[in-house]
Amino acid sequence: MSTRTRLDPRRRKEQLLDLGVEQLSVRRLDDLSIDTLAEVAGISRGLLYHYFSNKREFHLAVLRRMADQVVAITAPTADLPPLDQMVRSLEAFVDFVSANRESYVSFVRAAAAGDEEFHRIYEEARAALTDRIFDHAGADVLAELGVVDSPAVRLMVRGWSASVEDVVLSWLDDDRRIDKQQLLEMLASSLPAVASIVSPTR
Amino acid sequence: MSTRTRLDPRRRKEQLLDLGVEQLSVRRLDDLSIDTLAEVAGISRGLLYHYFSNKREFHLAVLRRMADQVVAITAPTADLPPLDQMVRSLEAFVDFVSANRESYVSFVRAAAAGDEEFHRIYEEARAALTDRIFDHAGADVLAELGVVDSPAVRLMVRGWSASVEDVVLSWLDDDRRIDKQQLLEMLASSLPAVASIVSPTR
Repeated sequence: MSTRTRLDPRRRKEQLLDLGVEQLSVRRLDDLSIDTLAEVAGISRGLLYHYFSNKREFHLAVLRRMADQVVAITAPTADLPPLDQMVRSLEAFVDFVSANRESYVSFVRAAAAGDEEFHRIYEEARAALTDRIFDHAGADVLAELGVVDSPAVRLMVRGWSASVEDVVLSWLDDDRRIDKQQLLEMLASSLPAVASIVSPTR
Repeated sequence: MSTRTRLDPRRRKEQLLDLGVEQLSVRRLDDLSIDTLAEVAGISRGLLYHYFSNKREFHLAVLRRMADQVVAITAPTADLPPLDQMVRSLEAFVDFVSANRESYVSFVRAAAAGDEEFHRIYEEARAALTDRIFDHAGADVLAELGVVDSPAVRLMVRGWSASVEDVVLSWLDDDRRIDKQQLLEMLASSLPAVASIVSPTR
């Protein structure tokens, strides 16, 4: 990024955060300082402190940026049948995690390691992804199965989202031995399979 | 524990590790020192250093003890129909996590936080739990569904185990709004539901 590029401050801040997310591929969050970012971005520390008043605020903003990206890219957009829409959202997630694997693992680890604010950012993103299933594409899949929204269904859908994250990371660890399309179809189909267990129609 | 209790060294070490596991309910692993354990156990630091040469070795032994406990208590023992056996194993897991919630969360966090050895202990326990599904009770459930062992089935079963952990922790966080028996039946039923997605009979 050239120091001469003219951008409005909001867009510039987003670009800096994207650089921060990228940096999590090569260093742990703990080791990501504002100085490091200044060096990578080729701008002065002073300018960076204009955007982030301290390291912690910077870290929180980087994790929030990654969480927002995951929620944004998996948003239902196309006018597709529900299961196809689910496959498309899952593909966006798989592609994101594939491209940003180390950063994503860093994010999950930071959230799991016990820091309350990191954990909240992660949980809010997961809640956004899960709640959406009851609002959009997933809702149609669930409705077709006669699944009625309930605490039990929400719990199982939450469990499904945990399994998706685990399966995608295992799939990458295992050198993608399974065809990506098969993976996406299995993950998409497992949502109605799991949700229908608690269906009153069953 | 009285310092006068006579026990063979192996049994004594296990008792000390159980105390260590218990302590994870009230303090983070990082804050669990050999000195703390000596105080809780009412024995000398010198004696403890006989069992554990340093803090790290002690921490690894505590986590391994907890992992071994989870694997042991969920082992298939009774001569029950496969799905009932699965419910029984899940109940043992739910009861363990309910009774040792903070310790278990500490364990998961320590494993997730990026320490390679902690992570390996956690992953080995999960692999033991998952592999067992293909050897024992779960194998019968899967066989009944015509599910054939394959990398895809293993991947989905692994995802199922991640969902079980996530659902049980959420269930506890959410003050057990769902009846425990219902929870167990949902979790047990979701294994064949997910595995049958990749079944060649489907």
